[in-house]
Amino acid sequence: MNYCSHCGSSQLHKKQPKEDTHTRIVCGQCAQVHYRNPTIICGCIIEQDDKVALCLRAIEPQKNTWTIPAGYLEFGESTELAAQREALEETGMAVEICELYSVFNVQHMHQVYIIYRAQFVQKTQEMGSESSAVKWFTEHTLPFEQLSYPAIKTMLLRHSKERKTGCFSLYQGDASAGRITGLHPN
Amino acid sequence: MNYCSHCGSSQLHKKQPKEDTHTRIVCGQCAQVHYRNPTIICGCIIEQDDKVALCLRAIEPQKNTWTIPAGYLEFGESTELAAQREALEETGMAVEICELYSVFNVQHMHQVYIIYRAQFVQKTQEMGSESSAVKWFTEHTLPFEQLSYPAIKTMLLRHSKERKTGCFSLYQGDASAGRITGLHPN
Repeated sequence: MNYCSHCGSSQLHKKQPKEDTHTRIVCGQCAQVHYRNPTIICGCIIEQDDKVALCLRAIEPQKNTWTIPAGYLEFGESTELAAQREALEETGMAVEICELYSVFNVQHMHQVYIIYRAQFVQKTQEMGSESSAVKWFTEHTLPFEQLSYPAIKTMLLRHSKERKTGCFSLYQGDASAGRITGLHPN
Repeated sequence: MNYCSHCGSSQLHKKQPKEDTHTRIVCGQCAQVHYRNPTIICGCIIEQDDKVALCLRAIEPQKNTWTIPAGYLEFGESTELAAQREALEETGMAVEICELYSVFNVQHMHQVYIIYRAQFVQKTQEMGSESSAVKWFTEHTLPFEQLSYPAIKTMLLRHSKERKTGCFSLYQGDASAGRITGLHPN
């Protein structure tokens, strides 16, 4: 941020407003306080029979690695709808949301991931430009050496195991800097 | 947003960037795309024996109603730490996070709530200026007619019931415009 988005002034200062607990960017001209908010990434593990659908990333970061469909929650959108929209955009598949499966922080990226389990309904359009391939994987064919992030690997390993029992846990925790910690309360 | 925070220009236009699926605010001068992100509210239900701690709001909105400690997730902070910090700031209590209890959207406010169950550890400081009182309530004394929002009432009713069984569910859904819908998968 170089200019105040409220008054256009370049007189921006870091300071702690009165009654606030954190340092903010404050405009020296109009006193507007500018907050920086973490972002929310919504996505889903798409299931059909004993398979899950993954996308090969066509773009950076992590180009040419496999991942689940996921992306930024849009303004005015619910987290469930965002997960469905990302599935449609990145795989071309309509899905139905089953339940929440992972809520984790990636602190160094200032992101919170909200991931659902989803059921494949039907292919309704071509995959979008963010994917260069979409493929179904069983637990035996999952591309563990070619996944986008350690947190995705950990989640898919857990999903493979739990699928056999039909009893799914909820993961909550932190995946910052490759470290995967957290609770599995169920 | 009146001015581009990148170059200071007032030539801001609404348009859909190429390869994008949504309309954005784009600078006509430097072509910077400005995204609007929903915000994350973290909080917790503080438990001790058969009681929960609530705060009486000293500020608007919903001044003079009872609520759980909750507030905006800060940049670089995890959702668990945010819930602990809000508990400390608004009640003066140090707490330990137990597990995720509710993840819900308030779409018309562009907010996602992430609420934990937490265990009281000790009182370590005075309550902050956002609260005018902090009090422990049993299920029989909960101030249901004086709670801040319908979603808080629904959550505390569920918590009271589940507490007797010791078996807690996870709520995920939508609390927009007073409507409480969603899944209780556990």
